[in-house]
Amino acid sequence: MHIDELETPALVIDLDIMEANLQRVASYAKSHGLRLRPHTKTHKIPALGRRQIELGAAGLTVAKTTEAEVMLRAEPPTLLVAYPVLGKTKLDRLTRVAQQTPTTVSLDSAEAARGLSEAAQRAGVEVGVLAELDAGLGRVGVTPGPELLALAREIESLPHLRFEGIAFYPGQLKKMDQQGSAAFDAVARLLENACGELQAAGLTPRIVSGGSTPSLFRSHELPYLNEIRPGTYIFNDRNTAFGGGCTLDQCAASILVTVVSTAKHGQAIIDGGSKTFSSDLSAAPGTPSFGHIVDAPEAVFFKMNEEHGYVDLAGTKARIATGSRLRLIPNHICVAMNLHERVHGIRGDQVETTWAVEGRGKLQ
Amino acid sequence: MHIDELETPALVIDLDIMEANLQRVASYAKSHGLRLRPHTKTHKIPALGRRQIELGAAGLTVAKTTEAEVMLRAEPPTLLVAYPVLGKTKLDRLTRVAQQTPTTVSLDSAEAARGLSEAAQRAGVEVGVLAELDAGLGRVGVTPGPELLALAREIESLPHLRFEGIAFYPGQLKKMDQQGSAAFDAVARLLENACGELQAAGLTPRIVSGGSTPSLFRSHELPYLNEIRPGTYIFNDRNTAFGGGCTLDQCAASILVTVVSTAKHGQAIIDGGSKTFSSDLSAAPGTPSFGHIVDAPEAVFFKMNEEHGYVDLAGTKARIATGSRLRLIPNHICVAMNLHERVHGIRGDQVETTWAVEGRGKLQ
Repeated sequence: MHIDELETPALVIDLDIMEANLQRVASYAKSHGLRLRPHTKTHKIPALGRRQIELGAAGLTVAKTTEAEVMLRAEPPTLLVAYPVLGKTKLDRLTRVAQQTPTTVSLDSAEAARGLSEAAQRAGVEVGVLAELDAGLGRVGVTPGPELLALAREIESLPHLRFEGIAFYPGQLKKMDQQGSAAFDAVARLLENACGELQAAGLTPRIVSGGSTPSLFRSHELPYLNEIRPGTYIFNDRNTAFGGGCTLDQCAASILVTVVSTAKHGQAIIDGGSKTFSSDLSAAPGTPSFGHIVDAPEAVFFKMNEEHGYVDLAGTKARIATGSRLRLIPNHICVAMNLHERVHGIRGDQVETTWAVEGRGKLQ
Repeated sequence: MHIDELETPALVIDLDIMEANLQRVASYAKSHGLRLRPHTKTHKIPALGRRQIELGAAGLTVAKTTEAEVMLRAEPPTLLVAYPVLGKTKLDRLTRVAQQTPTTVSLDSAEAARGLSEAAQRAGVEVGVLAELDAGLGRVGVTPGPELLALAREIESLPHLRFEGIAFYPGQLKKMDQQGSAAFDAVARLLENACGELQAAGLTPRIVSGGSTPSLFRSHELPYLNEIRPGTYIFNDRNTAFGGGCTLDQCAASILVTVVSTAKHGQAIIDGGSKTFSSDLSAAPGTPSFGHIVDAPEAVFFKMNEEHGYVDLAGTKARIATGSRLRLIPNHICVAMNLHERVHGIRGDQVETTWAVEGRGKLQ
């Protein structure tokens, strides 16, 4: 099928670009001896998780228990649930996952560790645990020092849990400019201290799992780090390009839309808004813009409602009329994927395959 | 089942509040002789569309063709697709809907009208058309005067189309304060002119369909208006309350979350972020905030990532610990509904029913 036959809005994935992205990171990880456990929140498709494993991934990462259930279909050698799991029902679902493949959870509290231990005991299974370290984002994770040592000791003392090491996510690194590099160095020092303290206390971390997309290709510079779990790299997006993690040509995913109205002079309305792209803003400072318009880069996608995107045509000479089709690279591909029931793999202008986004909407 | 047994995050709907909301608008419409064709984009659930019809709705409104297909399950007496439909495949799907129930489309271009006419001809069906008028939002719709007359004539001249009147959406009305009232008066004058011109040209609009949520209960003051198609009123949300359309007590939908981390002092992390609430901001100016925390109104939901919500506890005395459950009223319920696979109808603290959100993710 030709891509022009797809009903819009439609999310399409350039298969050649995606494969190159997958291979680039797989060989980076291999050449630096880093375990790769890709975060599947970006694609949410078991077939793509399978491809990551074929290229050498040691397992797959998910955020939620229901996502773990979906990703079992990729037959991962291991699963990392990078999110504290709380609540009996949810913990019992998690341990059913752990019965099917070796599973590890990252968490930052004694409450979460105890609940997990009890659930693992009920299920007669062992669950790996990473102590979550706050590497400067101020979201989840304990600080190095007594807090981290206490958490690691608690995990090690609890039955049916296996203390495996630490996890961290320095989401404060948005762009690897001078400021970003200084923040990266601070993360390196924090890691040095944290791991040193754990070793000294006899709690050597076997796994040190972390990193961020903008600093992905500098991960080998982080002391003790031996596992990365990038997500966005499979597709990349406009914010990854802004952060220096890719070029726009390396963005595999884009959204096809149709211009549905040009009633207002100098403006086109496209058939995708926040329900199609999400309302996530560009990470670049300045004028808000919700996507890079490949066919008319000077046109600005400046506003959206649920089903309407507003495009300012003032800067472009492209001929854009009611019925025209445009292709846009979204700011944030992970959230856009979550909005689509199915996506299409393309090569050139041909649709080669269509995948159901099996992990979309898995909130629990 | 007790609501505490629901896995979080979970979207719950207070059935008593919802029923009162439905009845309030149904009797407002009835008492003023206004046709009510509720926009189902808010709930996306055929069973709730059915309830709106039982309470007197003349039909249901949808934004997209795929939503129309879902809402056929509510057996609506009529369907209004309040969106220009373009593209042969999609138009052929739309006319299959029109074969099952009388269907009307609002559009603003000759291109859209011609495509619809050809598709209707192929299917051997007649489709109603409303000419879309720009009532000041600057999104879709033509301006009154020669543009509107030309569009109405084009529609009337095309085979298999039935010119029914006009549609408009004054989305610029955010709050009915002094400024909002002045903007409302401007909409009234615009409507007066537009309908007067159409009548003078022998193109009397049989249906004049429009209005906005903040001005909902003043709809009867708009000249010529004889149809309203509100959506949000079934649940209401924080932005509706801000706009004066309801009180917070009249918000039927809320999201239950669990606190998953309190590792950072003075902050709680909840298990819902942009994937659960959407990243739509509050319409109220000032500090950004992504939801009203019912159990701790002074705590501020100030930031989100996909799966994490950041709550500042500085202003609250509520005891909030890891594992605590909180209930939040989202800023914008329509986009939140689109993120949930299923939602739960509750009465008090009991879950009475669970609905699949059958119309979620219907983008085309």
